Amino acid sequence: MPTFEQLRREVWETNLGIFRAGLVTMHAGNASGIDRKRGLVIIKPSGMDYDKLRPADMVVVDLEGRKLKGKWKPSVDLPHHLYLYQHRAEIGGVIHTHSNYATAFALLGRSIPVYLTAIADEFGAEVPCAPYVDNIGDHIGETILQHMGKAPAILLAQHGVFTWGATPRAALKSAVMLEDIAKTSFLALLVGAPKPLPPEEVQKWYNRYHSTYGQEKKS
Amino acid sequence: MPTFEQLRREVWETNLGIFRAGLVTMHAGNASGIDRKRGLVIIKPSGMDYDKLRPADMVVVDLEGRKLKGKWKPSVDLPHHLYLYQHRAEIGGVIHTHSNYATAFALLGRSIPVYLTAIADEFGAEVPCAPYVDNIGDHIGETILQHMGKAPAILLAQHGVFTWGATPRAALKSAVMLEDIAKTSFLALLVGAPKPLPPEEVQKWYNRYHSTYGQEKKS
Amino acid sequence: MPTFEQLRREVWETNLGIFRAGLVTMHAGNASGIDRKRGLVIIKPSGMDYDKLRPADMVVVDLEGRKLKGKWKPSVDLPHHLYLYQHRAEIGGVIHTHSNYATAFALLGRSIPVYLTAIADEFGAEVPCAPYVDNIGDHIGETILQHMGKAPAILLAQHGVFTWGATPRAALKSAVMLEDIAKTSFLALLVGAPKPLPPEEVQKWYNRYHSTYGQEKKS
Amino acid sequence: MPTFEQLRREVWETNLGIFRAGLVTMHAGNASGIDRKRGLVIIKPSGMDYDKLRPADMVVVDLEGRKLKGKWKPSVDLPHHLYLYQHRAEIGGVIHTHSNYATAFALLGRSIPVYLTAIADEFGAEVPCAPYVDNIGDHIGETILQHMGKAPAILLAQHGVFTWGATPRAALKSAVMLEDIAKTSFLALLVGAPKPLPPEEVQKWYNRYHSTYGQEKKS
Repeated sequence: MPTFEQLRREVWETNLGIFRAGLVTMHAGNASGIDRKRGLVIIKPSGMDYDKLRPADMVVVDLEGRKLKGKWKPSVDLPHHLYLYQHRAEIGGVIHTHSNYATAFALLGRSIPVYLTAIADEFGAEVPCAPYVDNIGDHIGETILQHMGKAPAILLAQHGVFTWGATPRAALKSAVMLEDIAKTSFLALLVGAPKPLPPEEVQKWYNRYHSTYGQEKKS
Repeated sequence: MPTFEQLRREVWETNLGIFRAGLVTMHAGNASGIDRKRGLVIIKPSGMDYDKLRPADMVVVDLEGRKLKGKWKPSVDLPHHLYLYQHRAEIGGVIHTHSNYATAFALLGRSIPVYLTAIADEFGAEVPCAPYVDNIGDHIGETILQHMGKAPAILLAQHGVFTWGATPRAALKSAVMLEDIAKTSFLALLVGAPKPLPPEEVQKWYNRYHSTYGQEKKS
Repeated sequence: MPTFEQLRREVWETNLGIFRAGLVTMHAGNASGIDRKRGLVIIKPSGMDYDKLRPADMVVVDLEGRKLKGKWKPSVDLPHHLYLYQHRAEIGGVIHTHSNYATAFALLGRSIPVYLTAIADEFGAEVPCAPYVDNIGDHIGETILQHMGKAPAILLAQHGVFTWGATPRAALKSAVMLEDIAKTSFLALLVGAPKPLPPEEVQKWYNRYHSTYGQEKKS
Repeated sequence: MPTFEQLRREVWETNLGIFRAGLVTMHAGNASGIDRKRGLVIIKPSGMDYDKLRPADMVVVDLEGRKLKGKWKPSVDLPHHLYLYQHRAEIGGVIHTHSNYATAFALLGRSIPVYLTAIADEFGAEVPCAPYVDNIGDHIGETILQHMGKAPAILLAQHGVFTWGATPRAALKSAVMLEDIAKTSFLALLVGAPKPLPPEEVQKWYNRYHSTYGQEKKS
């Protein structure tokens, strides 16, 4: 289990990661991580330049969102992160972006079927698109919970993307891979009619990827 | 209020910002800022490489465009910047680009409706497209004034984009976010028929963003 | 003939090359090289960040895939690389990616005809698309062998891309050029009906490129 | 007039410029410059990595293509560069690329009309597309001469792009701007029917740009 400093650094690196991967522009988007033992959530501060952030700029709150540490205000999307942490004990990191190709699917209210072996590998199922929801109270968190499937990612209609994972880093991988497969899928839709892989084929890829892929600790 | 050196540096950083964000190529585009107390406008010099610009290369003029400082000629688009500063006291920074996706909408004479929560957040209303106008006298400035709405951005048909804000940095945010939402909107139009958010939903996002977002000083 | 250190470095550089060229994201994709005299294959480790890889992180196996050197597990795609090395003596380097435009063709099960002189130069023939195949045993290797043509590249339906060459570096060139010509071809298909070059014209470009192009050692 | 060292450096920088602007991949493309007083042409060597090139790697030939200086073989496209220098005394720099959006127009055999004020500014007229031509002898040079118009750029069907200017740097500007306006024009064609500017409007932009734009020496 990471120390507080290690987790804060990982949350900071994950925020840099979504910026460097081109998933966010200016101040949009945010990444967080949870330390369940210590009961604290670490998240990007609101409206600050990614490339000037330092680990110490991350904001530390408790699971009800009360600020414990940090001189900045947390991301306005903090309530949605907290809602996911409160309702899914297996989630250790959450990311929100408006990455372009994934959000183009979201704008049309379309899920992304398992068109590609890479989607089977990473997500194991379609990435669903939840219906439009406003930003009042826990509406976003509730909608995500209600519509999430097997994949550690969801689209919110006319809005954007949430991804998650056991760690902030795992959530980053989902966010990057989601935009990548959204782009390829989107391109194919422009000139033809791609077909999803049959479920038994999806399973083969998912199983291989989640049993033999990576080094000792998957990340 | 920034000192002269601080504002000049901010104008220089904003010009670098539109270049680094890929909104401009070669020498196209320009950013400026105004110091209303001292009565001077600072703008990019004409036709010079962005990546070689230094703060001291910025050109300083008065509100009628007479050069006060700097060895270079100012951007040929200076008159349009001045026109906006003269007619809108709340504007502190102006940017002009031909960023690709926004300009694709402009080439078709199409406004960008509030398809996305990010458009509601940042712009609070559609980004209008003004009709084609030539470059004689104050035609561009007049057209912008006539067609601007709530959003701090406008498209000019068959031409490009102007954005503005309380500071050069705020105008940069508008310019970057405009291209980002133009891209996602454009992609969605290629495979479906996106629908704008209802006005009351737009308001919810705009209100949250403009009341609780960011740190003490919004930028 | 390169020394072991030189080849390992070339394999490492080739892995960096597919990452820097934007052909892969996160941990997807992999490149390898073979030293036939010493009977060893060098390949990227599984699931590790490209930008943190060092030459010593490459994994060394024999032609049956038994690990000879390196502390990491090899790429899960190692069997497909080995199959190509075992069955094609002229192949010295192999690359696998899911690069977006080429994979969009693959998702639709479409080959890329010789639309462009650059395709004639580099590939000399269409880049075929093999039918979908699962990841069991040697299915991928067998399918590639069965469907490969003159071009040192193939698409696998609903999956991605394999390229190869006399060296890892030559395979890199194929991988980069494939994505480049896939993008241009794809764009043209969106607004019109591009036509392949006639075979005799293809031959003229291929012959020039493969006789007079480059310095003494083509790479 | 630049010294030999200055021109060689400018040719080198121009080659780096097309690479950094993303107009070329791997070894494709090339830029050259001419020193008419000394009777020599400086061009990129064939098939070498852009990011490893040094000024001294540029190849120096006379106007008939005989090598005067440099250890490398010149670009295989040297004859087309020479043909342009021989037949157009005002040309001081030439660039060849396969930049994606411009080449997508070329693949379809379509010229790029003056859709945008930026096209009027930079090119003053449509960018024509010459019919397909093979690579034998002076076929490419002859075709360019026959089909070139007012714009310092031309498309070659199913092949790519040539641009030129008074200096290598001016040719670079044409090459970068061409890809930029090709992209915007291409995008607009995907969702609508853009219309060219009327000739009298084109003239207004071209005149302003070529009289008042830039610093003392336009580049």
